[in-house]
Amino acid sequence: MDIDIHKFKDIDPGERVLMGPGPSNVPPRVIQAMSAPCVGYLDPYFLSVMDETQSLLRFLFQTQNPLTIPVSGTGTAGMETCLANLVEPGEEVVVCVNGFFGSRMADIVRRLGGQLIRVDADWGRAIDPEVVQKAVQGRSPKLLAVVHAETSTGVRQPLEELASVAHNSGALFLVDMVTSLGGMEVAVDSTGIDAAYSGSQKCISCPPGLAPISFSPAAMKALESRNGPVPSFYLDMSMVRSYWGAERKYHHTAPINMIYALREALRIIAEEGLETRFIRHQLNHRALVAGIEAMGLVMLVPEPERLPTLNAIRIPEGVDDTRVRKALLDDFGIEIGGGLGDLRGKIWRVGLMGHTCRRKNVLMFLSALETVLKSEGIKVKTGAIEAASAVYGGT
Amino acid sequence: MDIDIHKFKDIDPGERVLMGPGPSNVPPRVIQAMSAPCVGYLDPYFLSVMDETQSLLRFLFQTQNPLTIPVSGTGTAGMETCLANLVEPGEEVVVCVNGFFGSRMADIVRRLGGQLIRVDADWGRAIDPEVVQKAVQGRSPKLLAVVHAETSTGVRQPLEELASVAHNSGALFLVDMVTSLGGMEVAVDSTGIDAAYSGSQKCISCPPGLAPISFSPAAMKALESRNGPVPSFYLDMSMVRSYWGAERKYHHTAPINMIYALREALRIIAEEGLETRFIRHQLNHRALVAGIEAMGLVMLVPEPERLPTLNAIRIPEGVDDTRVRKALLDDFGIEIGGGLGDLRGKIWRVGLMGHTCRRKNVLMFLSALETVLKSEGIKVKTGAIEAASAVYGGT
Repeated sequence: MDIDIHKFKDIDPGERVLMGPGPSNVPPRVIQAMSAPCVGYLDPYFLSVMDETQSLLRFLFQTQNPLTIPVSGTGTAGMETCLANLVEPGEEVVVCVNGFFGSRMADIVRRLGGQLIRVDADWGRAIDPEVVQKAVQGRSPKLLAVVHAETSTGVRQPLEELASVAHNSGALFLVDMVTSLGGMEVAVDSTGIDAAYSGSQKCISCPPGLAPISFSPAAMKALESRNGPVPSFYLDMSMVRSYWGAERKYHHTAPINMIYALREALRIIAEEGLETRFIRHQLNHRALVAGIEAMGLVMLVPEPERLPTLNAIRIPEGVDDTRVRKALLDDFGIEIGGGLGDLRGKIWRVGLMGHTCRRKNVLMFLSALETVLKSEGIKVKTGAIEAASAVYGGT
Repeated sequence: MDIDIHKFKDIDPGERVLMGPGPSNVPPRVIQAMSAPCVGYLDPYFLSVMDETQSLLRFLFQTQNPLTIPVSGTGTAGMETCLANLVEPGEEVVVCVNGFFGSRMADIVRRLGGQLIRVDADWGRAIDPEVVQKAVQGRSPKLLAVVHAETSTGVRQPLEELASVAHNSGALFLVDMVTSLGGMEVAVDSTGIDAAYSGSQKCISCPPGLAPISFSPAAMKALESRNGPVPSFYLDMSMVRSYWGAERKYHHTAPINMIYALREALRIIAEEGLETRFIRHQLNHRALVAGIEAMGLVMLVPEPERLPTLNAIRIPEGVDDTRVRKALLDDFGIEIGGGLGDLRGKIWRVGLMGHTCRRKNVLMFLSALETVLKSEGIKVKTGAIEAASAVYGGT
């Protein structure tokens, strides 16, 4: 079995403006940190990097939870970690589903043998806490799970009332923060969130490969009082915590260079400050929406329920989804996302996350989209750039 | 909740010679490839990188298996992927245990609800196929699992006879190649291996974070004819294969930059050639052992069962394990590993893997160890460097 080595060229992807559902663009400082020499997983230097990464993650999650670490996998590994550690066979689990990632949580609950209580809402709308309240009435679920920022639709889910519904029914409150952590307020402790997970490659702007998670003391207690072992060895937090804690007990080889990268991305966030960062995300989102609406296009999600970080735009009648996205990528180097599931071919998903979330990217995207739509023979109104610029207050 | 950003300095680990149980040293070209701009997980450029990575992995595994991919996690995720996809509750699984990682497979089988048939051998010795044959007599296990290269002891397990035992009993043959793939012959197809996994950070010399796996047609058939779903969504190969195959169906965001790195590390291996590479590992191993034995130290494993890639040295009586390893790290920048489980404090584990496996590292380690042991007041015989050099045939 031989191979022709000359077929394989140097890695050279060129450059993209990553305005899809993630990954977002990675700041040069993060790449530089990732490129530092690899050391052993028990090297004293690396142990200090682990401690600092945990401190920075606690700051970002706004929590004191001791178990606040990056899981060695992507966002879906974070989702599975939370569910596999906290749900046992036969236990009732409420999952709110208003998009692709809510469905995924429901899928995982079924695989774990949990008794799924599914609360559905339209894709593109938030979940009504009253409907959830009705679903839990007279039950005592182990866990209530919801997606804070539905990457598939761009819906922002208010969390306070759902936290009350969960706690009043005795359930742990689990929140998917994949597309919110680092771009929006996610006050884990003050909101009463018991378990949360995210991904490194969205509003944190680190390359994909790590899933920050945080477990509250109540979640830790649930983990410690399980009847059976966690079904996944790799994601078993009762063991992984010993490596990240004082014991430093080997569990699996940590992805060293990825953790260098995450620490640097988190440091950049701390330098900017959370409030400044969230305002920046909000501002660029408003400018993008102003431009899109000035063009005569329509957002999928009603204004009060929109995420700043993921903007779902309805594809106008008669427009070829794939051709437009291909032209944006080929001619402008801009990546945006298509729809998932039932929304395939019906929406574009435009991410404004972390390092990508900048004025120049908003203006470049609006102008590129206008050009591409015109070249496709689609009539769009003029004035997008002006409308966006007005939001920024000038030029 | 605030944070003092001035506490966090630039990432700056210094340099190490990584001669522990992994990670090994990463070639500069791999770091360079990893640092290329991130692109989307469906970007046409990245899809071509995925295809090339699969071709290179097939070459390294010496297989035609279509499902030959890097799992998005470290070596243990690879182990869990193979077992979770191929074992269902109630099925008999034979696990050969002669070290830490065999025990880990047994642990995972129990978590999956498999009926564990455990075949034990002394830590530091290979498994006798006849003992395994007796254990399967009259049974029809689903799977027979063994570790090719026990990272915890340095034992090399011959695979041919065990492959026959497995197939004669109708079982799939699963092999842990974490510390062999890239440093030793692992001919998946010609040996009759149905599932194999490894880690990126050992003899492949890519940073940790990916787990190459390969499934034979028989393993794929077992996966397709499962009664229930794979318990892990994240590691469900019936779905992940659609993303890596022609369908390109989204499952989870691939760790883009890590895959750039893996592809480059695999390209370097293909450039060197498998046979040349394996001879290099064997030569440096022989030189190391010659030096160690010249010093009067003793290897844990009898000569015919030794791995070239992981060398377990008995710690002489009266030597403080931790002090010696700390001195090697602090004064010479050399990392070696301690023992795991019952072997803690009893052996040192010296890795000669991939990019680390070079003459200068062997000579530097021997000379550093001699210096450290002498400064600890331990008498060692002279002549280690000369003995090692003689193996290289010169100086």
